[in-house]
Amino acid sequence: MDADRFLALEVRLKSLEDREAIRALIAAYGPLADTGLAEDLAQLWDEDGSYAVGAMGEVTGRAAIAELIDGPIHQALMQDGCAHLLGPVAIDLDGDRATARGHSVVLRHTGTGFEAHRVSANRWELTRGPHGWVVSRRDNALLDGSEAARALLLPRH
Amino acid sequence: MDADRFLALEVRLKSLEDREAIRALIAAYGPLADTGLAEDLAQLWDEDGSYAVGAMGEVTGRAAIAELIDGPIHQALMQDGCAHLLGPVAIDLDGDRATARGHSVVLRHTGTGFEAHRVSANRWELTRGPHGWVVSRRDNALLDGSEAARALLLPRH
Amino acid sequence: MDADRFLALEVRLKSLEDREAIRALIAAYGPLADTGLAEDLAQLWDEDGSYAVGAMGEVTGRAAIAELIDGPIHQALMQDGCAHLLGPVAIDLDGDRATARGHSVVLRHTGTGFEAHRVSANRWELTRGPHGWVVSRRDNALLDGSEAARALLLPRH
Repeated sequence: MDADRFLALEVRLKSLEDREAIRALIAAYGPLADTGLAEDLAQLWDEDGSYAVGAMGEVTGRAAIAELIDGPIHQALMQDGCAHLLGPVAIDLDGDRATARGHSVVLRHTGTGFEAHRVSANRWELTRGPHGWVVSRRDNALLDGSEAARALLLPRH
Repeated sequence: MDADRFLALEVRLKSLEDREAIRALIAAYGPLADTGLAEDLAQLWDEDGSYAVGAMGEVTGRAAIAELIDGPIHQALMQDGCAHLLGPVAIDLDGDRATARGHSVVLRHTGTGFEAHRVSANRWELTRGPHGWVVSRRDNALLDGSEAARALLLPRH
Repeated sequence: MDADRFLALEVRLKSLEDREAIRALIAAYGPLADTGLAEDLAQLWDEDGSYAVGAMGEVTGRAAIAELIDGPIHQALMQDGCAHLLGPVAIDLDGDRATARGHSVVLRHTGTGFEAHRVSANRWELTRGPHGWVVSRRDNALLDGSEAARALLLPRH
């Protein structure tokens, strides 16, 4: 066996590791949101990363993202009882950048049961930073029939 | 180190790649269904692949699968707002064939909220083709207590 | 290339395999629960593994776990029609032990539609046994606003 064959194996392994790291990053979001760990959750994003939540507007930077979690809307959700359930993500790797597309469902306890409070499309833009993959931008929009929400789930051609 | 040890590593890597490719193939379904990209969605299947949706019957071939997406039932769902959320899949690899079992939930916007419109069992039969893994057959059935739906989720013994 | 570089590759591959095996183990739960394969489901656990379901208490050992599936509550769920949908898991590997955190949603057929019957936080403690990864403990609690349920989703610091 030669060095080329070894290198080829390393490249294939790296690609799997990248996909696994991206999946792990996104899988960490739900538990952090549900437990209200605002600082830890913000660390999933790049320093100047942004989070756009449909009609609620867009925030930039970790402090602003942490404030979303510490804010009254999210705290009320946690008080009632909530699950930020995500679906599997379709990952497109492109060197040190990647995109992941998938659904998120916020389930909310109503007192007598649970309801699907928000059902959204998500587009995660990711970057490989010095300490691993981070979110550079997340776009989230309610799947209420709007074209803009559907557009987040479109693959790049 | 010898060639055998290298080969063993390649085999292990290949197995992980296969599982990742199958997971990626299935993870692509939801976003394609929600955005109505009928042709792209049909490309997930083999040329003569089939899709059986419970009582709605079975279609064969990419053109027929694309028609399901372009048809009135699916287009009405998209108009209302929908999310084709999938769960994780239990993958059984067997050389150039594989089976994946898991749930799918179609969430539908009702105007005032979201409801779980369809909750189904899925059995995906997959084949490794010249361009990678494709779906040779997908069976989907409502988990409404029927034995037939449950049977789709059974492991092979 | 030298033996060290080869070894490093093997270690990285092993780590991916461990994560994949844990994900596969947990992905097997839903289909086994929905099909009522009590013995097979219990085999996901270690011989003396335990399963704590919130207020319903804790059971230990495979026979007791199988009884949960064979028992009247679970059988009634199956009769109605149910889906034990899981979300992605956040996996923390530590040698021969691991923790996985994530959501589970039991969807139940009501006769006219489906409802989110249980929405829970889950903490899976896993161990590498002689035949691969097994569950040593699963803690499940309703996300109804209780601090105890949220605590299951907390990362270790």
